[in-house]
Amino acid sequence: MEKYDLIIIGSGPAGLSAAIYASRAGLNALVLEKAGVSGGQVLTTYEVDNYPALPGINGFDLGMKMKEHADKLGAKFRDASVIGLNVAEDAAELHSEDGGYHTVLCDGTEYQAKGIIIATGAHHALLGAPGEAEFQGMGVSYCATCDGAFFRKKDVAVVGGGDVALEDAIFLSRICNKVYLIHRRDEFRANKALQDSLKQCENIELVLSATVEEIKGQNAVEEILVKNKKDGEMKSIPVSGIFIAVGIVPDSDVFGDVIAKNEKGYIIAGEDGRTNVKRVYAAGDVRSKQLRQIVTAVADGANAVTSFQEDLL
Amino acid sequence: MEKYDLIIIGSGPAGLSAAIYASRAGLNALVLEKAGVSGGQVLTTYEVDNYPALPGINGFDLGMKMKEHADKLGAKFRDASVIGLNVAEDAAELHSEDGGYHTVLCDGTEYQAKGIIIATGAHHALLGAPGEAEFQGMGVSYCATCDGAFFRKKDVAVVGGGDVALEDAIFLSRICNKVYLIHRRDEFRANKALQDSLKQCENIELVLSATVEEIKGQNAVEEILVKNKKDGEMKSIPVSGIFIAVGIVPDSDVFGDVIAKNEKGYIIAGEDGRTNVKRVYAAGDVRSKQLRQIVTAVADGANAVTSFQEDLL
Repeated sequence: MEKYDLIIIGSGPAGLSAAIYASRAGLNALVLEKAGVSGGQVLTTYEVDNYPALPGINGFDLGMKMKEHADKLGAKFRDASVIGLNVAEDAAELHSEDGGYHTVLCDGTEYQAKGIIIATGAHHALLGAPGEAEFQGMGVSYCATCDGAFFRKKDVAVVGGGDVALEDAIFLSRICNKVYLIHRRDEFRANKALQDSLKQCENIELVLSATVEEIKGQNAVEEILVKNKKDGEMKSIPVSGIFIAVGIVPDSDVFGDVIAKNEKGYIIAGEDGRTNVKRVYAAGDVRSKQLRQIVTAVADGANAVTSFQEDLL
Repeated sequence: MEKYDLIIIGSGPAGLSAAIYASRAGLNALVLEKAGVSGGQVLTTYEVDNYPALPGINGFDLGMKMKEHADKLGAKFRDASVIGLNVAEDAAELHSEDGGYHTVLCDGTEYQAKGIIIATGAHHALLGAPGEAEFQGMGVSYCATCDGAFFRKKDVAVVGGGDVALEDAIFLSRICNKVYLIHRRDEFRANKALQDSLKQCENIELVLSATVEEIKGQNAVEEILVKNKKDGEMKSIPVSGIFIAVGIVPDSDVFGDVIAKNEKGYIIAGEDGRTNVKRVYAAGDVRSKQLRQIVTAVADGANAVTSFQEDLL
């Protein structure tokens, strides 16, 4: 079985930062990535304008640059889908030859390491409306940046009220004929700059206090049924696409109950990344924290590696 | 008196990240910088290789890029040296027209804001040896990157045992004839990669378990007197320069006792940046935390702005 000092699960900004710090620290580290490409959610972000020193960079480019940085420092990567983690029962045996290893279970193989950094990130939440699963890829999308271009000059809807929903609506307004922004509350939780920008977009129509009840069509999305929460009235809005931006879900399922999580499924860890299990750390969007951003993800990666180095002493 | 939503004191990576996040959030923010140039300690770093996506960037360039990013988003900057902070006594009056303002005292003027982010950073510690002050700029330096070129083909000493000391020694070994690395202990606390790199440098001589007792010369440094801590023996080492890398001191003095600090002078604040005073936050190297790096500084700036936005509600 392959043995390492450190295994980093996931290679978004948190995992890549951990890989950079681990490489520079001379640790024998391996990064496992299931997506076939590193970068995480950044890859599907049209424009990143809050990673200091790189204003307005395309998300895909930023992900690639971070991966190249880790490569340049000699970080090792492996395509692998993690299906479980067996934590060391003999944690006290850290300094014996074979003791103190955690085991990462993958499809078809296993890896052992003295330290594990969980940087698996998060993914988009589902709306839960009839038709959502049926029309996925046929008009239902979770990534305006990826799929917006397929709806050029067409009418589309965006569902949600946070930063991503508003960003998506603004982005799509440049491509599409008309954008309906549907939100279940009567105000947005998105930041003020985005709300101001939204007001400048003449082809965005707000549909507030409203929920999407059904997504309908023949072979692809043709209309959505929207319910006004105040008067209960239903109306049909003809659209070719619906972009769902109703939140994120941490990718922490495979770690079962061994690694402690909060009620939303985020792995409980402080700024130093330490979880309830010795030498297992959480970094990036999967960690319980105030602010999920690229800047906080890269900080997490560095902090987790630093904690591991301390815990090895 | 000028009034703002938010005043950011200092414009190293933490302050610039805060400026970027504040601008994007539509806050009326002002950044105060005493150095005349933004970037903080990064500016005097020869090469930064751990800011993900920008491998091997020159520190000065990185500082400039971060400043340009903040400028591009419309952040406001003012040259000003902060000499004190009067915290709002009527913190509960936050939403009245004039209530809840903290006052930042500068040389000659004052500014008011509902929120203050202290991102004043830290500076190099002094060695405390006779001759150190006398020969500053005449052979005594705290920045190998800035001053190394003045000692081309000469013999120099570096004092310290951490990352910066080893980085400095390695950097200087490429420029100078010979580098003495003087450390009071018999092993280094610097990271392993640096220790490995150090061994590759043939013109670095280690002087361990030793302290610099005096720095001597006529008009400039000519020799240093070094004491072996084990046998008490003194020896003279002829050098033209001495680079002092013995640690950092947080720049928190002007905040007196109003803002709570730990025993080393770092402002006590968690990951969210909140200090003991309502709507006063600490970000970057001045904050009590595990790891002082650019990645953690930029995370701090974003977290402090986010906390302030929450605290305004």
